[in-house]
Amino acid sequence: MDDFIFHNPTKILFGPGRETEIGRELKEAGVGRVLLVYGRNSVKKSGLLARVKDCLKAVGVEFIEHGGVVSNPVLSHVRQGITLARENSVEAVLAVGGGSVLDEAKAIAVGVAADVDVWEFFTGREVTTALPVFTVLTLAASGSEMNGNAVITNEETRQKYNIGTIHVYPKVSVLNPELTHSVSPEYSAYGAVDAIAHLIEAYFTKKPGTHLQDRLVEGLILTIMENAEVIRDQPENAQARATMMWAATLALNGLTPAGVGPYTFPNHMIEHSLSALYDIAHGAGLAIVIPAWMRWYRPQNSEQFDRFAREVFGLDQGEEGITALKKWFKELGCPVTLGEVGIAATDIPAIRDNVYDTAKLWGVDQLYPPAAIEEVLHLTVA
Amino acid sequence: MDDFIFHNPTKILFGPGRETEIGRELKEAGVGRVLLVYGRNSVKKSGLLARVKDCLKAVGVEFIEHGGVVSNPVLSHVRQGITLARENSVEAVLAVGGGSVLDEAKAIAVGVAADVDVWEFFTGREVTTALPVFTVLTLAASGSEMNGNAVITNEETRQKYNIGTIHVYPKVSVLNPELTHSVSPEYSAYGAVDAIAHLIEAYFTKKPGTHLQDRLVEGLILTIMENAEVIRDQPENAQARATMMWAATLALNGLTPAGVGPYTFPNHMIEHSLSALYDIAHGAGLAIVIPAWMRWYRPQNSEQFDRFAREVFGLDQGEEGITALKKWFKELGCPVTLGEVGIAATDIPAIRDNVYDTAKLWGVDQLYPPAAIEEVLHLTVA
Repeated sequence: MDDFIFHNPTKILFGPGRETEIGRELKEAGVGRVLLVYGRNSVKKSGLLARVKDCLKAVGVEFIEHGGVVSNPVLSHVRQGITLARENSVEAVLAVGGGSVLDEAKAIAVGVAADVDVWEFFTGREVTTALPVFTVLTLAASGSEMNGNAVITNEETRQKYNIGTIHVYPKVSVLNPELTHSVSPEYSAYGAVDAIAHLIEAYFTKKPGTHLQDRLVEGLILTIMENAEVIRDQPENAQARATMMWAATLALNGLTPAGVGPYTFPNHMIEHSLSALYDIAHGAGLAIVIPAWMRWYRPQNSEQFDRFAREVFGLDQGEEGITALKKWFKELGCPVTLGEVGIAATDIPAIRDNVYDTAKLWGVDQLYPPAAIEEVLHLTVA
Repeated sequence: MDDFIFHNPTKILFGPGRETEIGRELKEAGVGRVLLVYGRNSVKKSGLLARVKDCLKAVGVEFIEHGGVVSNPVLSHVRQGITLARENSVEAVLAVGGGSVLDEAKAIAVGVAADVDVWEFFTGREVTTALPVFTVLTLAASGSEMNGNAVITNEETRQKYNIGTIHVYPKVSVLNPELTHSVSPEYSAYGAVDAIAHLIEAYFTKKPGTHLQDRLVEGLILTIMENAEVIRDQPENAQARATMMWAATLALNGLTPAGVGPYTFPNHMIEHSLSALYDIAHGAGLAIVIPAWMRWYRPQNSEQFDRFAREVFGLDQGEEGITALKKWFKELGCPVTLGEVGIAATDIPAIRDNVYDTAKLWGVDQLYPPAAIEEVLHLTVA
C-alpha cells in the first residue's frame, strides 16, 4: 500500500424514477438557474428530458438548454455552452445523458468559471474552480457520474485530451438503471468494455502485491462480465442493468486504485487517438486496443497477468487470460481488430504520432516511445 | 439491486506522518478553535498528541483539550465534553484515537449543536445538525473514520446505543497505519473481528443474489484474514498494517451494503449488550456472538452461508464455514465463549432482556423475540 488521498463527495441517488428528485437537489444546493446539457434525440424521444424539465419547473429552478452534445464531445460545442452559460449567468450545470454529455457539462463548468480558454485546462493548466455539476445518467460506462474526469476532443487539432479535478465531481448524480434498458446491444457491450478498461489500467500497470485492490477489481470484472452476458440476451433485465450501472460507477470512482501507488492509463491513451482520428465509439476502440496492449505489456508484469487469468477465467497462464478476454469481447459483439472498424494498417504511423503526443502530455513518453506505440498498434491488426 | 442513496463525503489522508496535515485541513475549513478529544495514556506516551498539538499551533488553530475517553465511551463523559465545547465556543471537534474516541467526538459534535440532551438522539430523535468532525485514527477496527455512526454507553441505564447520520461523517480523517504498529495483539485481533463483523451483517441478512456486493465483502474478508495473520506474527509489518487499516475503513463506509436492500445488524445488537453490561472489548464480544448467531441463523439463508463457506474457506457446506470461522477467531487469540470472558451462563436472562430493549429500539423485535435472543446466547456458552 502506498500513500493516497481519497475524497469522493458525490451523492448518488440510485433507483427507478429518481430523475424527478434532481430539481429538489438543485434547490437545496441553492441553485436558481442551471445550464441543462443534453445530447440529441434519445432523451427527447424517451420523455426523460421532459420529465427533468418538469421537475425543475416544479421547484422553480430556471434552465437554459444546451442540447446537441455528440459522442466524443467536441471543443467547439463546449465553447458554445460556456458562452451560453455566461450570457445567462447560470449557477450550475445539469447534464442529462451518457458519459459524453457529462464530460461536456464538466468542461463547461470549468470554462465558465475561468478567465482563460477552457482548452488550456486540457493541455496542462490546473483547474482551481468550477460551477457545481449535477447529472442524470443514461448509460453505464464512463464512470463520469462519480469522478472528476472529463475527456473532450479538439476537432481542429484532432486531440482527445482530459482533465481530472476535484472541482467537477458531480454534487449529485441520479442513476436510474431503467434509463439504460433501451441502450442498443452495441453500446451496452461497449459500456461493459469501457468499465473493464477502467479497472485493468491500474491493475496491470501498478506493482504487484496490493491484494485488497486486486480483489476489488476482480470482483467488479466478474460482475460486469456476468451481467453483460445477461444484458446481451435480455436487454430489459432490470437486475442486470442495475448491477451493471453501479459496477460501472465503482469501476472509475477512485476506489480500486486507492493505495496501489503509481500506475498509468495506456489503453485509454492509445484508444483516445483512435476515437479522435476516426470518431469511433470509445468502447469499440478499447476492445481493439486492450488485447493488443495486454499481449505487448505482459512480460513486464507477468505475475499479475497470471493472476488475472486465474481469478477471472480460471486459467493457468497469463497469455491464456488475454486470449480469453479477446474472445469474450468478440462474443459480446465488439470489434477486436482495426480492420473491423475500417481503419487500414497503413494508418498506423499517423495514429502512432497522435498517441505519442498524448504520451508526452501525460509524461509517459519514456515508457511509450513511438516504436513501442507502433508495436502495440501492429498487434491490433489481426 | 435495490434503490439506495450513497453519499460519503469524508476526505481520507492515508499514509505515514499525515497527522501533521490535520491543522492545515482545519484551517482551510475555516475552523479557528477546536475541541481536541482523546483517550488516556497511549496518545501521550507515543508523542502523537504532542505532534497534533504542534501542528495546530503552527497554523494558529486554538484547541481545548477533552482527554480521558474510555473504551465503550460513556454518556457522562460525552456530556462533560459538550459543556466544555460550549463554554469555549469551539467550531469543530478533532478526535485523536481509536473508534471509541471518534464515537465520543461525534456524540459531542451532535450534542453541542442541539438544544436537547444528547442521549435523545441515541434513543430515536433525528439528528439535524452537528459541529464538523475531524479525526486522526490510531486503530483499524470500527470504521468510524469514514461513516456517520457513533455508539455510546449510558452507564446509568446500561444501554449501549448508536446514532447514524450524514452530519457526523468526518470532514477529514487521517489514516496513518504506523500509528497502529504498537496496538497489542489482543486489540489487533479484535479490530480484525470487528471489521469482519461489519461486513457479514448485511451479507448474511440481506436477500441473496446481489453478487457485486457479495464479491466486495468476500474480497475484504479474505484481505482482513490474510493480514490479521501477518500482523499476529509480525506486529510491525507495515504493508499488513496499512492494508488492514484501509480494509477496516471500507468494511463500514457504506460501500458494501449499497444496493442490497433491507438488512439487519444482529451481531452488533447482541454484542452491544455484552459490552454494556460487562465492559468487555467490542471485538472480543463479537468473536463470541458471531459463530453462535451464524449457527442459529443459517437455516434462514442457507444459500448465502454455503456461498460464504465456499468463497472464504473453500469449503462445501455452510456449517463448515461457521466452524472454520470460529476456529480462526480462536487461533487469532479471541475468546469464542462467554465463559472465556468470565460471564456465567446464569446471566443469560439478564443479557437477553438488555438485547431485547435494543431490538425494540431498532424495530427488529419481531425477528428477535426474547426466546430467539436466548437461543443465540445459549450457543455462546460452549
